Amino acid sequence: MTETQVTLIQIDNYGPWTVTPEPRREVDLQTLQSRLYADVSQLVGNSQGYAFFSRFDNMIAVTNGLDSDDHRLIQQSIANRYPITASMGIAVDTSPIAALGRASERLQCAGSAQDDGRRNVIRGETLPDGHRTDEDVQIAHFDVNDATGKYTDELNEFDTFIRIEQSYAELMRYMRRTHDSLSFFVGGDNIIAVCSPLTASDYHDAIDQVHDTIGVDLKVGVGRARVAQRAGIAAKEALESCREDGTVVEMDSVK
Amino acid sequence: MTETQVTLIQIDNYGPWTVTPEPRREVDLQTLQSRLYADVSQLVGNSQGYAFFSRFDNMIAVTNGLDSDDHRLIQQSIANRYPITASMGIAVDTSPIAALGRASERLQCAGSAQDDGRRNVIRGETLPDGHRTDEDVQIAHFDVNDATGKYTDELNEFDTFIRIEQSYAELMRYMRRTHDSLSFFVGGDNIIAVCSPLTASDYHDAIDQVHDTIGVDLKVGVGRARVAQRAGIAAKEALESCREDGTVVEMDSVK
Amino acid sequence: MTETQVTLIQIDNYGPWTVTPEPRREVDLQTLQSRLYADVSQLVGNSQGYAFFSRFDNMIAVTNGLDSDDHRLIQQSIANRYPITASMGIAVDTSPIAALGRASERLQCAGSAQDDGRRNVIRGETLPDGHRTDEDVQIAHFDVNDATGKYTDELNEFDTFIRIEQSYAELMRYMRRTHDSLSFFVGGDNIIAVCSPLTASDYHDAIDQVHDTIGVDLKVGVGRARVAQRAGIAAKEALESCREDGTVVEMDSVK
Amino acid sequence: MTETQVTLIQIDNYGPWTVTPEPRREVDLQTLQSRLYADVSQLVGNSQGYAFFSRFDNMIAVTNGLDSDDHRLIQQSIANRYPITASMGIAVDTSPIAALGRASERLQCAGSAQDDGRRNVIRGETLPDGHRTDEDVQIAHFDVNDATGKYTDELNEFDTFIRIEQSYAELMRYMRRTHDSLSFFVGGDNIIAVCSPLTASDYHDAIDQVHDTIGVDLKVGVGRARVAQRAGIAAKEALESCREDGTVVEMDSVK
Repeated sequence: MTETQVTLIQIDNYGPWTVTPEPRREVDLQTLQSRLYADVSQLVGNSQGYAFFSRFDNMIAVTNGLDSDDHRLIQQSIANRYPITASMGIAVDTSPIAALGRASERLQCAGSAQDDGRRNVIRGETLPDGHRTDEDVQIAHFDVNDATGKYTDELNEFDTFIRIEQSYAELMRYMRRTHDSLSFFVGGDNIIAVCSPLTASDYHDAIDQVHDTIGVDLKVGVGRARVAQRAGIAAKEALESCREDGTVVEMDSVK
Repeated sequence: MTETQVTLIQIDNYGPWTVTPEPRREVDLQTLQSRLYADVSQLVGNSQGYAFFSRFDNMIAVTNGLDSDDHRLIQQSIANRYPITASMGIAVDTSPIAALGRASERLQCAGSAQDDGRRNVIRGETLPDGHRTDEDVQIAHFDVNDATGKYTDELNEFDTFIRIEQSYAELMRYMRRTHDSLSFFVGGDNIIAVCSPLTASDYHDAIDQVHDTIGVDLKVGVGRARVAQRAGIAAKEALESCREDGTVVEMDSVK
Repeated sequence: MTETQVTLIQIDNYGPWTVTPEPRREVDLQTLQSRLYADVSQLVGNSQGYAFFSRFDNMIAVTNGLDSDDHRLIQQSIANRYPITASMGIAVDTSPIAALGRASERLQCAGSAQDDGRRNVIRGETLPDGHRTDEDVQIAHFDVNDATGKYTDELNEFDTFIRIEQSYAELMRYMRRTHDSLSFFVGGDNIIAVCSPLTASDYHDAIDQVHDTIGVDLKVGVGRARVAQRAGIAAKEALESCREDGTVVEMDSVK
Repeated sequence: MTETQVTLIQIDNYGPWTVTPEPRREVDLQTLQSRLYADVSQLVGNSQGYAFFSRFDNMIAVTNGLDSDDHRLIQQSIANRYPITASMGIAVDTSPIAALGRASERLQCAGSAQDDGRRNVIRGETLPDGHRTDEDVQIAHFDVNDATGKYTDELNEFDTFIRIEQSYAELMRYMRRTHDSLSFFVGGDNIIAVCSPLTASDYHDAIDQVHDTIGVDLKVGVGRARVAQRAGIAAKEALESCREDGTVVEMDSVK
């Protein structure tokens, strides 16, 4: 079983802000967005969570271990450092997509993303300490086999990028449709998926799917823990085992 | 005619660094990558260029107006602030993909992305001042029609993300294959493309393509200038005209 | 009684680095130093501590509540994000200056600040959980009475700065000599002191001393708690009481 | 002759903001201030200027080479990235303190630092290109002789800090009173002074003054150029000559 706590972090009324009173310089928007994500990543990470930039104005985080006060603190820190504010929806479910679904609805009920009256809202509830287990979060860390040798050092960078992007697009759709799981590109040739309780065979199927449709070969390490960060480290270590042993799927043995 | 100067900025030996002596914390990698991009965006932006994060360990920039010393300064600033170094390939061409192709080759000739002996390299040449014109750079800024009303406020955030992502994946492939152009997702529902000299009709075709294959409706503003930043601002203003007038393609009139 | 846990954070071999192979651009050094401090402030703050920039290459922090692993994590984060590393000395004492003294000695014993062989060292021990109390940390937050009206809006900024600086210099020496306490300028007209267990009368004396020697009028709010951050917030609230009530010294009542 | 262009950058209404609706977390304020300074340092540095943090809510910059548009861009960038805004006063004079005096007055005339109605103001004028020369800016870079050997590796860090601080306090007052010059602590054991056209003998006197009153031995390298950054690099190189040759004052020969 997994019990993933998912938080949707949405910048309040961002679209209108970016063009008021006239379109703001793109370079300043890019700086704002990427720094904001770096900070959110740190703030969520302080409590052992993982945050993904996804669309930057909407970030998705795995927040097992963060309670309501922790969320409030992150929200205040954003307001104290940036010219914008953020609202949050939180939900818990065995299925990551179901958790995100309810988190999204809660935020939508509080007002539109472009409703100037909705600011600094937090909606939803967190997983009570007594219900938490060491298998609540399952993280899978994928990368591309020999991406440097096959792509980066061979193709022009945009065609390499297209290959990686296609693999990601296929994997994200497959994992969402088939396994209710949320996959995120995290740079280079790396994809991290927040998963329902999948088996090694499920991961082999996902990798086959990407191989068959896109022609790119992935491998994956999988970790499971009470919090995202520990699950993520276990996943990375499992991925190192793939690299050393030439295997395609490695699941960390549950401790 | 366009003459796009493209720079490929590649972190040296990044993959091995991220797992030496053991896998580094993901949250620190994400912080490093997004801050590095924010800085590169600023440093390139100081000279009126645009930088895109693409894969984060490989960033692509439009650098018309930056000479060899400007590149060297960016490289030094990275080395002075981060635990990693970066190498750069530069090339100029009417076709953005051809420019990036030569920039990539130059870097590849200098050594592999994972060659520990290749550090702080700069290869290639820049567009001489005497050859520069006010139409060298064509930037197209796309966004999704009513993304907030149709998606953000209606679907769960991951399904919204998938729709945006699919639109981007389709557009990036179409624009590259058909028009030698480089498209980048820049957050929210925004895509910026660095283009060869396209017409309004070309842009209508691109938008139709995304509509027909993915079912998502885009609109686009196009700007042209001596440098990326001015072309980008013109593109954003043209996109505002689309919004106000309900049009789908707006090209700024050349001044 | 107070039991202040003090950590000295020292950049390893920084001086030589700044001039190797030739003097680095001052603007990059300033960026590096102030960002590093911002990060250290956040990383220490995550566990409710306070960090002060002091000389930037040597930062002093109040770290009650941070154990050895927390320090190790901060050290790793610095190494993962910056081109430099840092070593740390830690000690606990009723007297803040005695704690810092032992923390300094431990680091000095491990090697010189400019010894290239000394890197990423941590020396010292932390306050065991069982010995911690709600009065371990006493924080005093001083500011200048009507600094804006008397100085900022009246003098040229440098002469204002000199007045504030002189007040700080006098207070830092008086508090260190008379009360074994560590005072830090934190911007604007604010000084934060990490104190031994002082009384309201002691604070009145300190304020009189600055008035008599420099002619600048300070006021102070004092807080006491298990960790620096809570003590610091109590101190700020006490300072607000000074402002509202026109008083000069306010001690928060121990809860 | 020197013609120093000085800009006072003042956060608008900062004091009230820090305590509204209640005192904000010190750790967030420290993060905000030091990041803002890092950005201002970069933004001013892009055009070859130097910015000093001084009181953080009031920063002083040498801006020869920046025109009115450059200032406006810095102001917009701050507003686009931070929850606060900043106003600026600019003036030019042979005497740095006179320039700062007029810059301060211009800002004061536009409204109080705590006037909520004064936001994003820019007042003053810049040095016209036709009047600029290669000797407009004189920068002196001081450091402490063998600071690591005598202090950092010997004393507790606070007593080291007090020695450095005292040297700075004495130098800042002497240079302001005697030579209309502005001195700033920039970390470690380094002080940078923005000077009127002083001679080697003047610098010897300043160093003697600090030796006689505080007992700390300084040395200094001096550079002169059209812009602060080039003068600053020349000063640093001259300081390296002091180190190599065991001298106390080195002036770069004018090129």
